Amino acid sequence: MTDAETTVGELSEGQVLRGILERLPVSSAPVGPGDDAAVLAVPDGRVVATTDTLVHGPDFRLAWSSAVDLGYKSAAVNLSDVAAMGARPIALLVALAMPDDTPLSFVHGLADGLARACAELAPGCAVEGGDLTVSDTLTIAVTALGSLDGRDPVLRSGARPGDAVHVIGDLGVAARGLDVLFSRFVDTAGAPIPVTPEARAALSREDAEALDRQLRPRPPIGAALAAADAGATAMMDVSDGLALDAERLADASGVTIAFDSDALGDDPVSTLAGGEDHGFLVTFPGGTVGLGRRVGTVAERGEVAITVDGRPWTGRTGWDPYRDWDAGRG
Amino acid sequence: MTDAETTVGELSEGQVLRGILERLPVSSAPVGPGDDAAVLAVPDGRVVATTDTLVHGPDFRLAWSSAVDLGYKSAAVNLSDVAAMGARPIALLVALAMPDDTPLSFVHGLADGLARACAELAPGCAVEGGDLTVSDTLTIAVTALGSLDGRDPVLRSGARPGDAVHVIGDLGVAARGLDVLFSRFVDTAGAPIPVTPEARAALSREDAEALDRQLRPRPPIGAALAAADAGATAMMDVSDGLALDAERLADASGVTIAFDSDALGDDPVSTLAGGEDHGFLVTFPGGTVGLGRRVGTVAERGEVAITVDGRPWTGRTGWDPYRDWDAGRG
Repeated sequence: MTDAETTVGELSEGQVLRGILERLPVSSAPVGPGDDAAVLAVPDGRVVATTDTLVHGPDFRLAWSSAVDLGYKSAAVNLSDVAAMGARPIALLVALAMPDDTPLSFVHGLADGLARACAELAPGCAVEGGDLTVSDTLTIAVTALGSLDGRDPVLRSGARPGDAVHVIGDLGVAARGLDVLFSRFVDTAGAPIPVTPEARAALSREDAEALDRQLRPRPPIGAALAAADAGATAMMDVSDGLALDAERLADASGVTIAFDSDALGDDPVSTLAGGEDHGFLVTFPGGTVGLGRRVGTVAERGEVAITVDGRPWTGRTGWDPYRDWDAGRG
Repeated sequence: MTDAETTVGELSEGQVLRGILERLPVSSAPVGPGDDAAVLAVPDGRVVATTDTLVHGPDFRLAWSSAVDLGYKSAAVNLSDVAAMGARPIALLVALAMPDDTPLSFVHGLADGLARACAELAPGCAVEGGDLTVSDTLTIAVTALGSLDGRDPVLRSGARPGDAVHVIGDLGVAARGLDVLFSRFVDTAGAPIPVTPEARAALSREDAEALDRQLRPRPPIGAALAAADAGATAMMDVSDGLALDAERLADASGVTIAFDSDALGDDPVSTLAGGEDHGFLVTFPGGTVGLGRRVGTVAERGEVAITVDGRPWTGRTGWDPYRDWDAGRG
């Protein structure tokens, strides 16, 4: 019997776990996986912690995302939240809830994706704990922990009038990738159809890259830490949409963020509403040479949280899981 | 419209979140909920981290568990894992994935249960982060973090021949509660029927207490920390079954755990297989006055991991989510 034929329901929890553990990065923690809990070193006595979940349905379609993609993305979206505080990711804890007919090969793909994301995005970060359970709905709940290494945490609330507003990382690329999926990888009834290597090869280079970024976001973790070191006054992960996330940062800081549409690319409307790039929205004191690209300026708080070219933004701002999911899955 | 009639699908994520946050313990963390991640103080530079998930179906029936019960249990099962390392729980992160027809009042009950568990079991511990998403399957994924406060972590691997084997906390009580549910709260077709206050009042005092412990486990966190301070050589949370968990501890330590059936209550067979008490299995050096009740002795590793009255244990050892779930839900 091959991995592809074996399902998790045919195995014990311990057997499933062994296949996962052997694929994960080697732990260098004081106490790694296998005990009641892990023990991790955070030399300055502060730990940064965040959690984010991918659920089959609202967060992904199995026709579009491979197991490796899902493992990668579930790590990436959490690593970016840790880095957005100015912290170095040190550990992931992964709770997997899977239908019992899930192929073992799929679980191994998830583990490979987790390992690859750690290696590519946050070397030294490892999966230090987790939980396996059965569920009718495939659910990947990840917690990421980080070490500030003596830095002050960079909060959403630190932006001050006169600061420059920058974005580090992609802007609108993941949203374009989502458009590619919904326009090129659905059948006439709107149901998702698989992203085969052949179909992918037929895409333009730009569309293929956008698709890749949608399925495997690549937050520039090192650049976020460099931004913290360079004096960033506020920072956050851009996950739900640039406009929506900028509103949150503006509200937390009691300021207005004034975007310059010229800096938002060819399609500012899509760029403002597009999420999932997992780049970083950062403010730097005026006069600082910031990282990334400048997209606007922090102003005194006006009537609205964000403006574009001086006018209130009335377009779409981003994604809300309760309002926006169409109940599709596949 | 009352809370009970409103469902999460009718609200934005922010609206759902507000109702949760106002029910949770007040954060005293350097950075509490609301930013990309929380920042928590762990003065000795080490953080203990664990994650455990409750999934509708394998882990609970909505006919039997109230929202408060589920919030309480999802916290308790994680707090016990932190304490089993000899660490003081300082924070929970809670990822809730809920069907969009979940009543808002249910979500508030979950928050109340989380708050109550923190207050009763681990005062000072607060919910410092989380995530809300939609799912077809109600899923509560909790991560707990703890501070060792200068203690050495107490591992599973530290038991040595000659140590005394103790259990701190309940033993077999939660399993008896599960028996009460499956014998008294199912209809003739075996489907779960609600645990009403009237039906509960009709139970014997012992059955009512067992039911309460099954629905709201009460790990004695303070006693686990006291055991660490008293020189425990190994410790673990008893979650899946005393025999199964003892096998794990014995294997990790390279020893055999020799139970004495006289110490296992009136029904040693059930006690050995029963899980979910979330008490602690602890070994103390011979001659130490240990905490809890003595249930056996650590022996040199023999052919098997555990014995009862000197004979290998061939009965049921505990619960495995992949092998043992009968696909029932309700």
